[in-house]
Amino acid sequence: MIGSTNKSTFTKSNHLSPIRYKLYYWPTIQGRGEVIRLAFEESGEAYIDVARNKPEKKNDHPELIDMLQNGSVNTPPFAPPFLVDGNLIISQAAAILQYLAPKIGLISDDTATQIFAHQIQLTISDLISEAHDTHHPISSALFYEDQIEESKRRAVYFTKLRIPKYLTYFEKILTKNHGNSEWLIGDKLTYPDLSLFQIVEGLKYAFPKVFSKLSDDYVKVMTLRDAVSVRPNIAAYLASTRRIEFNTMGVFRFYPELDE
Amino acid sequence: MIGSTNKSTFTKSNHLSPIRYKLYYWPTIQGRGEVIRLAFEESGEAYIDVARNKPEKKNDHPELIDMLQNGSVNTPPFAPPFLVDGNLIISQAAAILQYLAPKIGLISDDTATQIFAHQIQLTISDLISEAHDTHHPISSALFYEDQIEESKRRAVYFTKLRIPKYLTYFEKILTKNHGNSEWLIGDKLTYPDLSLFQIVEGLKYAFPKVFSKLSDDYVKVMTLRDAVSVRPNIAAYLASTRRIEFNTMGVFRFYPELDE
Repeated sequence: MIGSTNKSTFTKSNHLSPIRYKLYYWPTIQGRGEVIRLAFEESGEAYIDVARNKPEKKNDHPELIDMLQNGSVNTPPFAPPFLVDGNLIISQAAAILQYLAPKIGLISDDTATQIFAHQIQLTISDLISEAHDTHHPISSALFYEDQIEESKRRAVYFTKLRIPKYLTYFEKILTKNHGNSEWLIGDKLTYPDLSLFQIVEGLKYAFPKVFSKLSDDYVKVMTLRDAVSVRPNIAAYLASTRRIEFNTMGVFRFYPELDE
Repeated sequence: MIGSTNKSTFTKSNHLSPIRYKLYYWPTIQGRGEVIRLAFEESGEAYIDVARNKPEKKNDHPELIDMLQNGSVNTPPFAPPFLVDGNLIISQAAAILQYLAPKIGLISDDTATQIFAHQIQLTISDLISEAHDTHHPISSALFYEDQIEESKRRAVYFTKLRIPKYLTYFEKILTKNHGNSEWLIGDKLTYPDLSLFQIVEGLKYAFPKVFSKLSDDYVKVMTLRDAVSVRPNIAAYLASTRRIEFNTMGVFRFYPELDE
């Protein structure tokens, strides 16, 4: 799977040379890898989504497993997603974005800006983990069906307390940004904007009833979400088959009984 | 509260000038802040542990709350710990260490080394979050006593599956390190070594029965733990009142019913 093939890709990289970036992530979910896919897509930078490169065998992703278990890798990842760039292997979504963003035009070279962006991204990672645990509060080794009662109890606190706490925080950052823009930092889109878009989409999918009641309270977050959605490369990505649909295998899952 | 006052502190910083680094974290727990305290202590770099500076009023930490709610902070933290260094405010323990370590001699300037150290640290952060949720699987807004049954169920999977998975990963990194040392990266101690020590101490405290059965399987992890514990600055810190004792308010908590 190769990223968007608009003109800017061919401007940036010679299509005769090998594609530099290889993303390793589960091929059937958005999950924790989607924030990285969004960054590649917005930038127009070509990338290989390794495990999705063989659509005829969707559950066969030996490359991914091999990289996790391969004895020759000196800096092994704990889990997907991970990015391979030459000899470097980088795991942890926030660390991947921190590394990648300056190289693909999604953050400036300013140190303070990069530090703040990374903090926001790590907070988004925390929210994603908490969202995951609404349907797996006991263990990822169990099916959701084996922890429904605990899930229902956790989801109440997540939707009543945690979603508002996180969205209030992002709204506060947007309010404090004096960059006269709809973005989190300064006057240009940076990679955490794409990830915040993803959070909103995920929460809307997983908790439609809850989210429809909440969203009016976070005007700036919703404005950012809309602004990301109409970026030409993002709009093209969302309309393509490269965007995996939300489903009940990923981080954000729609179970009506958790959306109260 | 000022960090270790051995000679190296006075060599590195003029004690007539103000102390550069201010750490903001809850004053009565090790929690997510302890990995940063350990880094300061090992380095000998002076720091102010802001909320602990008034031992007569342990529950009064307006400085910390003020920084979270202060309208004048343009890059607000989501939660403690956070570090103040001049005009910079940095939150998220792993991001703080990533920023701080090169400045206080706990990582080399090599980019690949710094990237790998940060990945390890982020994985340690994930383990700390999972350990926390063994006693708060439903919500941090509830007392442990109100989620004991769910905690017992989660703790079984944490101790049987997750602790071994994480320790196997760290043991693998130690085995692959060709630096001919007891450390995670190369031939010198780096900041994730201190954090892995903290993880081992926390797991030993919270799950003594479980851990005593497991620890023989992770020889290199335990060797690293021992090697950190005898570092002169760390040994002095652990013996001092600056090291807060483990307790049932922090991330690692000992509840016998979870240690099965």
